[in-house]
Amino acid sequence: MEKERLEKQLAFIVEADKLKNVLRQNVVIGTTRNENSAEHSWHLALMALLLSEYAREKGLDLFRVVKMVLIHDLVEIDAGDTFCYDEAAHEDKEERELAAARRIFNLLPEDQAREMWDLWREFEEQKTPEARFANSLDRFQPLLLNHHTRAHTWTKPGVTREKVLKRNSIIAANAPELWEYAQRVIDQAREEGYLQD
Amino acid sequence: MEKERLEKQLAFIVEADKLKNVLRQNVVIGTTRNENSAEHSWHLALMALLLSEYAREKGLDLFRVVKMVLIHDLVEIDAGDTFCYDEAAHEDKEERELAAARRIFNLLPEDQAREMWDLWREFEEQKTPEARFANSLDRFQPLLLNHHTRAHTWTKPGVTREKVLKRNSIIAANAPELWEYAQRVIDQAREEGYLQD
Repeated sequence: MEKERLEKQLAFIVEADKLKNVLRQNVVIGTTRNENSAEHSWHLALMALLLSEYAREKGLDLFRVVKMVLIHDLVEIDAGDTFCYDEAAHEDKEERELAAARRIFNLLPEDQAREMWDLWREFEEQKTPEARFANSLDRFQPLLLNHHTRAHTWTKPGVTREKVLKRNSIIAANAPELWEYAQRVIDQAREEGYLQD
Repeated sequence: MEKERLEKQLAFIVEADKLKNVLRQNVVIGTTRNENSAEHSWHLALMALLLSEYAREKGLDLFRVVKMVLIHDLVEIDAGDTFCYDEAAHEDKEERELAAARRIFNLLPEDQAREMWDLWREFEEQKTPEARFANSLDRFQPLLLNHHTRAHTWTKPGVTREKVLKRNSIIAANAPELWEYAQRVIDQAREEGYLQD
């Protein structure tokens, strides 16, 4: 019985290894290599440890923020990374990700599958202060990478300053100081001609 | 004043991006690509969330375990990943890593530099139950990858079954059920001819 439990847990952990192969739109600073979703999740967790003082809502359960960012992208193992400015791909994103979550989290023993599912839904629904701050970090990290990679993803077709501002507005609502910085980054990218109006 | 604080924090977070370029000896499952230390750290944090029930010492502060595994390899940005079975490289490993920790953590504001330093020293010194469990996971994760990649790192020159058993003995002391599993993995690698006596 216990052995079966460990086997399920290890099957999930081995499956999770695949997130290292899911490529995002950003490139790693100083390289032309696309960032993958596993290292992105690590970077977010590190940021959560260091930037929680900027959350507008105080008294966050920081461990829950960290848990959410660690697991928030696991559904991409099946559903892939959906480029945030690709409106067509977003049409069936939720459906694809729900199916992925069901398959992947259910590799775990039932109690842990439920815990992972709840964390993932909390992140997606943004109804708690922890989820809102986690989502703000998930916007702020690619912005920071763009700032250090000549606005790599912002120079792609169809991306405009207005879309970037709109997408990042969750930072404005939930981490005002980070939003001040973000606005300067966006303005600078426009001035330097990387980001179009 | 506050602006300077945020700038220091972001300088550190940008510096941390370099961990995505530090390659380890293991390969990602199903690929010939070396794992990097950032995605390895993410994988450890996920394992900490799911496997804490196997820690021999109960009542762990799991958040501290997660913090430790998230930051434990940052020193490799300067010091590189030292192959655990390379005895020559281990001679000056501690000195190289101490210098790296001083430079990298001191990019942060003083209070956070101290917190990161303390977490890193705790991990290295293995004097707390949290540090011992974190180190056990840091051994168990590459073993799990080896199990699924034809014992990739165990087939390298100079690696023997005795050395693998010795290196992983920290798992035996701190997570007996994981050690049972680890022994089966090691035995199987020997039976299949990947690991030499």
